[in-house]
Amino acid sequence: MLKVEEALTIIIDSVLQLNAETVSLTNSLGRILAEDIFSKGDIPALDNSAMDGYALKSSDTKGASSGTPKILEVIDELKAGMITTSEIKHGQAIKIMTGAPIPRGADSVIMVEDTGREGRNVKIFKEVESGENIRKAGEDIKKGESGMQKGALLKAPHLGILAALGMPEIKVTRKPVAAILATGDELIDVGEKAVPGKLRTSNTYTLYSQVLSYGGIPVNLGIAKDEPDNLMKKIKSGMECDVIITSGGVSMGDYDLVKDVFVKMGADIKFWKIAMRPGKPILFGTIKGKPFFGLPGNPVSSMVGFEMFVRPAILKMSGQRDEDRKEADAILEEDIKKKKGLRFFLRAQTRWENGVYLTKTTGPQGSAILKSMMLANSLIILPEDEEYIKKGTKVSVRFLN
Amino acid sequence: MLKVEEALTIIIDSVLQLNAETVSLTNSLGRILAEDIFSKGDIPALDNSAMDGYALKSSDTKGASSGTPKILEVIDELKAGMITTSEIKHGQAIKIMTGAPIPRGADSVIMVEDTGREGRNVKIFKEVESGENIRKAGEDIKKGESGMQKGALLKAPHLGILAALGMPEIKVTRKPVAAILATGDELIDVGEKAVPGKLRTSNTYTLYSQVLSYGGIPVNLGIAKDEPDNLMKKIKSGMECDVIITSGGVSMGDYDLVKDVFVKMGADIKFWKIAMRPGKPILFGTIKGKPFFGLPGNPVSSMVGFEMFVRPAILKMSGQRDEDRKEADAILEEDIKKKKGLRFFLRAQTRWENGVYLTKTTGPQGSAILKSMMLANSLIILPEDEEYIKKGTKVSVRFLN
Repeated sequence: MLKVEEALTIIIDSVLQLNAETVSLTNSLGRILAEDIFSKGDIPALDNSAMDGYALKSSDTKGASSGTPKILEVIDELKAGMITTSEIKHGQAIKIMTGAPIPRGADSVIMVEDTGREGRNVKIFKEVESGENIRKAGEDIKKGESGMQKGALLKAPHLGILAALGMPEIKVTRKPVAAILATGDELIDVGEKAVPGKLRTSNTYTLYSQVLSYGGIPVNLGIAKDEPDNLMKKIKSGMECDVIITSGGVSMGDYDLVKDVFVKMGADIKFWKIAMRPGKPILFGTIKGKPFFGLPGNPVSSMVGFEMFVRPAILKMSGQRDEDRKEADAILEEDIKKKKGLRFFLRAQTRWENGVYLTKTTGPQGSAILKSMMLANSLIILPEDEEYIKKGTKVSVRFLN
Repeated sequence: MLKVEEALTIIIDSVLQLNAETVSLTNSLGRILAEDIFSKGDIPALDNSAMDGYALKSSDTKGASSGTPKILEVIDELKAGMITTSEIKHGQAIKIMTGAPIPRGADSVIMVEDTGREGRNVKIFKEVESGENIRKAGEDIKKGESGMQKGALLKAPHLGILAALGMPEIKVTRKPVAAILATGDELIDVGEKAVPGKLRTSNTYTLYSQVLSYGGIPVNLGIAKDEPDNLMKKIKSGMECDVIITSGGVSMGDYDLVKDVFVKMGADIKFWKIAMRPGKPILFGTIKGKPFFGLPGNPVSSMVGFEMFVRPAILKMSGQRDEDRKEADAILEEDIKKKKGLRFFLRAQTRWENGVYLTKTTGPQGSAILKSMMLANSLIILPEDEEYIKKGTKVSVRFLN
């Protein structure tokens, strides 16, 4: 059976990055940069004051103290955002606000708290060194740089820097549009009247949420019957999307039709089983060049399958450079028995305590028990060849958002 | 000077949770639940099959093996979502699909892989135990429960469970609307023409992003001049919002007018300085019962001030129960000198390596160097009373989203 990494490689190799679009700066939060950013100039553009105070020559402060202040003449006043042509000579100072460019002749700024104003003069109570309280031009971003490359996920500080660079519009990768289709005669939707023997579709809403959480645009295709024509019609209604995600209908039963229907539609099936639990029966392929995933019907299997396989595909389509899931080791707080040959993903609560991570499962791990997922902040990952894992063993955990 | 925790207590005590509103299930992702959820019935409602296979009496499989199969008569066929009135007697089985309710008389299900169909009969190749492959009614959610209380942040599995419970509409706390106002004569906006000595407002966009990231609705009030009337007019334009956030104009200079203007408007000032760096001058108070924050003008100070003080206020307004920032210990990879008496928050990259976290700063830590924030995934937190912290010391880190 296909291993998790092998499956992932096949998926990543089959999925292409989407094209770019231009959005306004405020709409670029959480988007993926589609261009390298180069600054046209230094940020800040000029040496400027880090403090409110007085710009002066540091040599003029030599020997200054509160008992023996030096007295300088204030020849100008510089509000933030103002520039002056005045040049400071020995014995002179210019009042300066934070952010204002350093006037010619000054090599430092003394904080207003270390001075005392007296009419046209200012008393200097402290020595300052050359360069003190000056922010150098380009200390944040140097001309020709930015630290922001294609593939960067734009967060708050990125938007701040893009604003500083004067970029009201940003080129980002288009968001993948993901069609979501639940399948199964047993399913009814959330607003429908309860019917004995029927279940409400959870997967529609967990998958919808997962697509949205990882930067996709979910399109809900509703529920397909376990019947080829109906299933095909529904799948066709999602063919305009960038990726199609179904749940249910991929395991062994007579009514597991998803694979057959995709084949009938001319799909190229890449695999349909992975050596893992939950989520063993996972169908993946391409149809008319677009990727599709057939996830299992059990709610937890479908969520874990999304986390492990659809999420990386969405990130690649979005052009995101880095996988950002945090993994760590944790001490297992219970004994676990698992099936050999499968990688296990157990829903877990992992917490930091006394300098280590401790982890335990969130109760029964049946793949229909969505509550185990709701209570989890992480997945415990147990390797294929293990069978019994003792309490106290160091295991891998993967944090979920 | 006020300590970080003291300031936080004052803020939390001054801020109220907002009222509730009803949204559709798909719009509830990322929102905060405003009601406790109780299930009207068991989920799943009935005992049902975990596998595609045959429902039977486990005692009929005693001694079965591939060499000596037991043969049972198939009396009915149960698709998922179907129920049957047929009752299984000894020697009988009912074909059953995953999710279909267990018929009367059966106590277990054998997987289809362990059987062989022959016309009206099925060969059983394996013993099964009583209860095997049966998902019990209520195994996910029991009647009267749900595990979801007021204050829960709704993530993907929550939406799945709410769907299973048949709730197309959900009561959530209203999103806080946050007015954002940059102040300073030196500022111009991202789209404006560059002017020597002027800076583009980064804070407008970092604060906008931070509000959005933590579940608020940002409203950009633009840039106010360092001039009381203009500042007051701009602040008044945000008084319909739930919280007002300014940046700049809160330190020692003549042009730091924000506090004076708020006082003139009848505000109750709670504090305006905190023993920390960056972010020492942070103004907090209430005006007409609404909280406001005067953050420093330096981009990093403003972001760290938001992270530490505005974010918890927004979470409380949203009704969020748990602070979800992950903190851990990490080994410091460089020597650090800090000012005694202030808590330091250094921008850092923290990574998991060989079973421990290692952390180092993201370069120069000047409070105007937004790049240090862009490169960071965490903040190193250094206590007030330390002055020199040696490489190799264990320090606290706080992960940023």
